[in-house]
Amino acid sequence: MSSEENDIGPKTATGLSAARIESLSDGVFAIAMTLLIFQLKVPAVATDASPAVLIEGVTALWPQAACFALSFITAGSLWIAHRGQFHYIRRTDRPLLWINIIFLLFVSTIPFITALLGQYPTYTFAVILYGVSMVLTVLTLWFHWFYATRKHRLTGAHLSEAVVRMQSRRILTGPVIYIAAMSIAGWQPWISILCYLIVPIAYALPSAVDRHWFGHHKALRPEDSGE
Amino acid sequence: MSSEENDIGPKTATGLSAARIESLSDGVFAIAMTLLIFQLKVPAVATDASPAVLIEGVTALWPQAACFALSFITAGSLWIAHRGQFHYIRRTDRPLLWINIIFLLFVSTIPFITALLGQYPTYTFAVILYGVSMVLTVLTLWFHWFYATRKHRLTGAHLSEAVVRMQSRRILTGPVIYIAAMSIAGWQPWISILCYLIVPIAYALPSAVDRHWFGHHKALRPEDSGE
Amino acid sequence: MSSEENDIGPKTATGLSAARIESLSDGVFAIAMTLLIFQLKVPAVATDASPAVLIEGVTALWPQAACFALSFITAGSLWIAHRGQFHYIRRTDRPLLWINIIFLLFVSTIPFITALLGQYPTYTFAVILYGVSMVLTVLTLWFHWFYATRKHRLTGAHLSEAVVRMQSRRILTGPVIYIAAMSIAGWQPWISILCYLIVPIAYALPSAVDRHWFGHHKALRPEDSGE
Amino acid sequence: MSSEENDIGPKTATGLSAARIESLSDGVFAIAMTLLIFQLKVPAVATDASPAVLIEGVTALWPQAACFALSFITAGSLWIAHRGQFHYIRRTDRPLLWINIIFLLFVSTIPFITALLGQYPTYTFAVILYGVSMVLTVLTLWFHWFYATRKHRLTGAHLSEAVVRMQSRRILTGPVIYIAAMSIAGWQPWISILCYLIVPIAYALPSAVDRHWFGHHKALRPEDSGE
Repeated sequence: MSSEENDIGPKTATGLSAARIESLSDGVFAIAMTLLIFQLKVPAVATDASPAVLIEGVTALWPQAACFALSFITAGSLWIAHRGQFHYIRRTDRPLLWINIIFLLFVSTIPFITALLGQYPTYTFAVILYGVSMVLTVLTLWFHWFYATRKHRLTGAHLSEAVVRMQSRRILTGPVIYIAAMSIAGWQPWISILCYLIVPIAYALPSAVDRHWFGHHKALRPEDSGE
Repeated sequence: MSSEENDIGPKTATGLSAARIESLSDGVFAIAMTLLIFQLKVPAVATDASPAVLIEGVTALWPQAACFALSFITAGSLWIAHRGQFHYIRRTDRPLLWINIIFLLFVSTIPFITALLGQYPTYTFAVILYGVSMVLTVLTLWFHWFYATRKHRLTGAHLSEAVVRMQSRRILTGPVIYIAAMSIAGWQPWISILCYLIVPIAYALPSAVDRHWFGHHKALRPEDSGE
Repeated sequence: MSSEENDIGPKTATGLSAARIESLSDGVFAIAMTLLIFQLKVPAVATDASPAVLIEGVTALWPQAACFALSFITAGSLWIAHRGQFHYIRRTDRPLLWINIIFLLFVSTIPFITALLGQYPTYTFAVILYGVSMVLTVLTLWFHWFYATRKHRLTGAHLSEAVVRMQSRRILTGPVIYIAAMSIAGWQPWISILCYLIVPIAYALPSAVDRHWFGHHKALRPEDSGE
Repeated sequence: MSSEENDIGPKTATGLSAARIESLSDGVFAIAMTLLIFQLKVPAVATDASPAVLIEGVTALWPQAACFALSFITAGSLWIAHRGQFHYIRRTDRPLLWINIIFLLFVSTIPFITALLGQYPTYTFAVILYGVSMVLTVLTLWFHWFYATRKHRLTGAHLSEAVVRMQSRRILTGPVIYIAAMSIAGWQPWISILCYLIVPIAYALPSAVDRHWFGHHKALRPEDSGE
């Protein structure tokens, strides 16, 4: 960076840099994920209780622990997807910031819907609310990608349509799985919850996009390989 | 960055860089926003209660949920405004850091005033306290801008007066709306709360400043366009 | 940064960069400061209580609110001091990271000692515990500076002894004021608490160091002024 | 950075940069560490109770305070180890991000296992759960290093095998100490807890790796020393 630019112009010439929205997002994710554990309350047992009583009290928390793990992994997969989008998004504008804020609003509700599910895992309502909330979260993330890549609005001009479509399809598998899982919530709530686990696993599978993370630059601009 | 500068001088030669105050601010915003959800307590119902009881318990949280959404969106708009200011602020000094700390102090009270409003939305006192607190928050943010841009104290020399004034006016619409909304709080508290929602929506509208985010550099320094 | 360095060597050649310890510190400060508000519990009043009951319940929180503001401002001044040190600290080593961790341990206790003070402001014990904890926090910060600057261990070689000493003296005014304030805690606890407020105010005063933030580079290395 | 790269290619050409996973990790660590203090509840005493009652109530928190300090220091040592790994890890891929997420999942459970241990320090179950959880956390961190350095997958090509092995051995001392400490938990729980303290202290000792932080670059590439 030339010193003149440092002294005179705005920090970025072509739109707001993405650094701070990434930083805010990392913060919201970190907090929402870390606070999930707070739905596991240390059981209160008498100080002279037998060891078995404490063990029983802690193991009775297994539904909460399972939902904690499910939501932590799911939030992790959302974070990776968000982070993957910003691998290509080079700058931000006001609408993108707002789509991000709405996305973070949904992310911040994860501790609530997780605590509800952990406490009432056999209630269809808790299972459905969790699924609906996740569908809205993922659809907002999809819209985030759609808005940013539409006509290369906020990405580089060389981002290929193939990557844009691959990412879109990958994101949209989530809502499909959630809706399928919710369809059996009234009948077998625990199986619905198990199916919710498919989403982060599906997102964790290697993707054709991954190759682009490493190879895209080279493939498209071989003349830069020596850089 | 030359290696000599890296080895010998302070990290920035012309005042403290803004990186860390931005990082602290992002952290405080992320936490205050994410913790807003914790005013929604999972309702306690008997484990053998009918599904309707749980649904009723959760839907009874709608005033808290509405206030959560209002404050999340409002805090988001304050964050965007703060972030927009640092698009132009190039360095910091001790007074600016302190104005920031005071601003963050007000931001950190948002979870409290929101929880109060969510629990007592029909009490004029809760509505007024929310409004007054928001007015103080926004006025501190305005003073932050005023201090930084006054005689280009902490911005680049080429920042145009038009941008400075546009930003000022935009910020000051917030307090005007809050005061108007508060004037009917004693009579129709819920309409006051609805009016509070106008502030983040007004801030979300596209602004003439946005064009400057993208075009300012080029417009003012055409000779750099090839850079 | 040359692409070769990017591909082959460690990210920084001369010790660990300070970026991540600054990021962890910003996180701990942001959380400790934002969570201070959580000692203000929304008062529980009957839903059909008269407005006066709610107003009374909220205004009864004034000792907690006062201690919240005191601790927020104090933590802010500690953050500015920490940030000011890293203006000169160019790299880290294992001992510095550990001194930082101990410093952050003390910072993370601020919500507890503040909640205790807010609830029992007239108890000498709460006032003394607050003061002792702050003295330990500040002394750790002083040791952080001492360790980093001793024989220019982790700073640039051109950092002048005058700046090192000025910063040291400035930091050590805090413990002196705290100890003086504690000496009257058994007699007038509220006056002790008021005296605690002097520390952040003293730290907020402009300092000769500030000029160095802006002028040091130029003053010491006039040949670089054109850079 | 050339403006062409800024305008056209992805932000990093050779895999995802590590910046954001470091930022998420710093956030989770900062939150988990800062929230540890919240297991210390301000004791509730009558407002007209004698000073001795409050002192007694606070000093009765010493097991919680001890476990808070143990976990804060332990988490600090894990953070330093994580940070030390990213001194060499230059880029990330999808599996590394997932190993990181699993690592952070274990880190986020520290507040729970610490609160359990602080409340029931004489119960073998609480001591064992703490130890087992820490072993899993450290083993995940070891696998993180193993995955990243295997065949220089995500590190620079010049990272020496000696550094890789030294780091591995250093990490694996933790589980050995934890398992030894757990073996006496059924007999002397407090001595087990004391032994847990050996792990962060062992990690805090200077290491041969530290020299590499400072000297590695120069030692391996003397031709770059003038850079």
